Amino acid sequence: MSPARWLFTPGPLTTSPRVKRAMLRDVGSRDPEFLAVVEFIRERLLELVGSSRARGFEAVPIQGSGTAAVEAAIATALPFAGKLLVASNGAYGERMLEIARVHGIPHRALRCAEDRAVAPEAVEDALARDPAISHAAVVHCETSTGLVNPIEAIGAAVRRQRRAYLVDSMSGFGALPIDAERAGIDFLISSANKCLQGVPGFAFAICRRDALLACEGRARSLSLDLLAQWRGLERDGQFRFTPPTHALLAFAEALRELEEEGGVIARGARYRRNQKLLVEGMAGLGFRTLLPAALQGPIVTAFLCPAHPRFDFQELYAGLARRGYLIYPGALARADCFRIGTAGDLCEANIHGLLATLRAVLDEQQIRLGAAPR
Amino acid sequence: MSPARWLFTPGPLTTSPRVKRAMLRDVGSRDPEFLAVVEFIRERLLELVGSSRARGFEAVPIQGSGTAAVEAAIATALPFAGKLLVASNGAYGERMLEIARVHGIPHRALRCAEDRAVAPEAVEDALARDPAISHAAVVHCETSTGLVNPIEAIGAAVRRQRRAYLVDSMSGFGALPIDAERAGIDFLISSANKCLQGVPGFAFAICRRDALLACEGRARSLSLDLLAQWRGLERDGQFRFTPPTHALLAFAEALRELEEEGGVIARGARYRRNQKLLVEGMAGLGFRTLLPAALQGPIVTAFLCPAHPRFDFQELYAGLARRGYLIYPGALARADCFRIGTAGDLCEANIHGLLATLRAVLDEQQIRLGAAPR
Repeated sequence: MSPARWLFTPGPLTTSPRVKRAMLRDVGSRDPEFLAVVEFIRERLLELVGSSRARGFEAVPIQGSGTAAVEAAIATALPFAGKLLVASNGAYGERMLEIARVHGIPHRALRCAEDRAVAPEAVEDALARDPAISHAAVVHCETSTGLVNPIEAIGAAVRRQRRAYLVDSMSGFGALPIDAERAGIDFLISSANKCLQGVPGFAFAICRRDALLACEGRARSLSLDLLAQWRGLERDGQFRFTPPTHALLAFAEALRELEEEGGVIARGARYRRNQKLLVEGMAGLGFRTLLPAALQGPIVTAFLCPAHPRFDFQELYAGLARRGYLIYPGALARADCFRIGTAGDLCEANIHGLLATLRAVLDEQQIRLGAAPR
Repeated sequence: MSPARWLFTPGPLTTSPRVKRAMLRDVGSRDPEFLAVVEFIRERLLELVGSSRARGFEAVPIQGSGTAAVEAAIATALPFAGKLLVASNGAYGERMLEIARVHGIPHRALRCAEDRAVAPEAVEDALARDPAISHAAVVHCETSTGLVNPIEAIGAAVRRQRRAYLVDSMSGFGALPIDAERAGIDFLISSANKCLQGVPGFAFAICRRDALLACEGRARSLSLDLLAQWRGLERDGQFRFTPPTHALLAFAEALRELEEEGGVIARGARYRRNQKLLVEGMAGLGFRTLLPAALQGPIVTAFLCPAHPRFDFQELYAGLARRGYLIYPGALARADCFRIGTAGDLCEANIHGLLATLRAVLDEQQIRLGAAPR
């Protein structure tokens, strides 16, 4: 393997050397020193959404991928007589529907186009029409497009209709400010390895404690039981099953790093600078974004594949990868796109590096695109 | 946190500096270089059980804890009209029963004492009596006691009765030789962070391909669907959901380290030397083992708590932990025990170090036990 990689992907992302170095030791998964790290993480995650235990919220880390944590939330929260509404405008909304299907949970899809934000009025209308729906769910930042949905306005609609509210903020948490209480969120799911800039290995749910306690007897899995996971942590500070100790050590370091950077606001601003520079540079090279700027988040940007006869994403990918730059394929049903991430331990110098390399690869492939209209 | 720790636990274990250093880089989870690492891991795991794809087996890594992988195997393999027999002599046998309960899978427990091996004849008898049982499961090395069950003889009984066979070899794989075909195993589950000396973050199942393909439509979870996980890896070499990239890099290094050590036989021999030295030294200090030597595996040993009035496990633990040595509490219902692991990147010098430190802690606590009868 070549030594260094810059990950311009939607995750796992580039992490700092300091975060990775935190993994250079082994700790006992039941030792008090490690349990203090877990406790630090749980407290800090709540602070990041403007909340705390005293305000009635709990952070529950769970081993596995982000999808496993979304599955844990859905399969723990939905009562057997419940029904899930998923407002979907991308691959991760569809994934929540797939989770409901696998578990045999009644569900309804409220779909809108991948380049449109979910409309709070449409959610409210869907809830008003179907009293069987107990829970509404939405993706905060759709990793498939980079689109940011208005989770506060949707939350207000869900509250007015007196339903429970799940938000998948895999690609938003840590870079987009979230006030869990103000948004009326019952379950908010994210992962260690996105904007919080840890390494992959676990994810977590921020839960309103009352909503979590109401889940008694509902869990459809042993490993993915959020309530049992929380009870285990509350009982003795331990994970019920072996945690990824090294990933948790890295994550504690990543949280300290986030604080030193200036918190969520400063991190989001850095990502936005990265993203603005990327889009400007890409426009100069002739690439257009899928989304209008108003819907675009700072984490990942989908670019339309140009119609040039020699343009081939796999060749572009390979040319960039040979030089240490990894970008990402598209994930859309209807538009031919590729994606470039601007989150992780990346700054404007890295974006300049990517753009210069991209220009070199296009030259090598003798591809010259007209400058894209802005 | 203090800088160095020796983990004399049943896992996560002490890993080598070289394995940890493999985590000092970020890789793209869909990049061909990383996919080659995953492919290497999948091939090598099959070789470790004397098998290969050509011989009809498949290795399926799965994100999360070892328990998540056991849950994946049970919740993927059991048909809706199936029934699971679990031959249980410890906490991990009980955990398989708990998984069946949570998923509403009909099951039967064949329990024996925690200090007795599962009898193949008892398994055969239980299967013969209950034709509804479709799958039999047993734990190879019970982490709760260190006991090794005779998985080949049990497998022969299961074969004669024409049922499918699941083995949880969390604490055996990598140190106890396993021939998956000869033992007639359909699903064999283990983890990265036990005797293979990787870091925690994922586990895996070795599956007989025909048995895996027969699982179509049975999975009760999206994340913990072994068949879909395998299909995803076969399709494009990728994990369906974000893998713990750093833990996989560490694991590939750990597999190379295992090969250099001389493979499973050499590793098991080192653990046995560690364990023999530990038991002898502990006997000299007055500690008796729970199990007779014939049932004892080399991974972890349960010692009976002595009746001395000043003996207190928590104080012993704390005294050792202050000096960098982590041992483990007991996990038995009926006997007051504590556990000391002898697996991981530990050699005889480390055992001498632990024993000397233990002696110092007991002296400090003014505890002198009579030498235990051997």
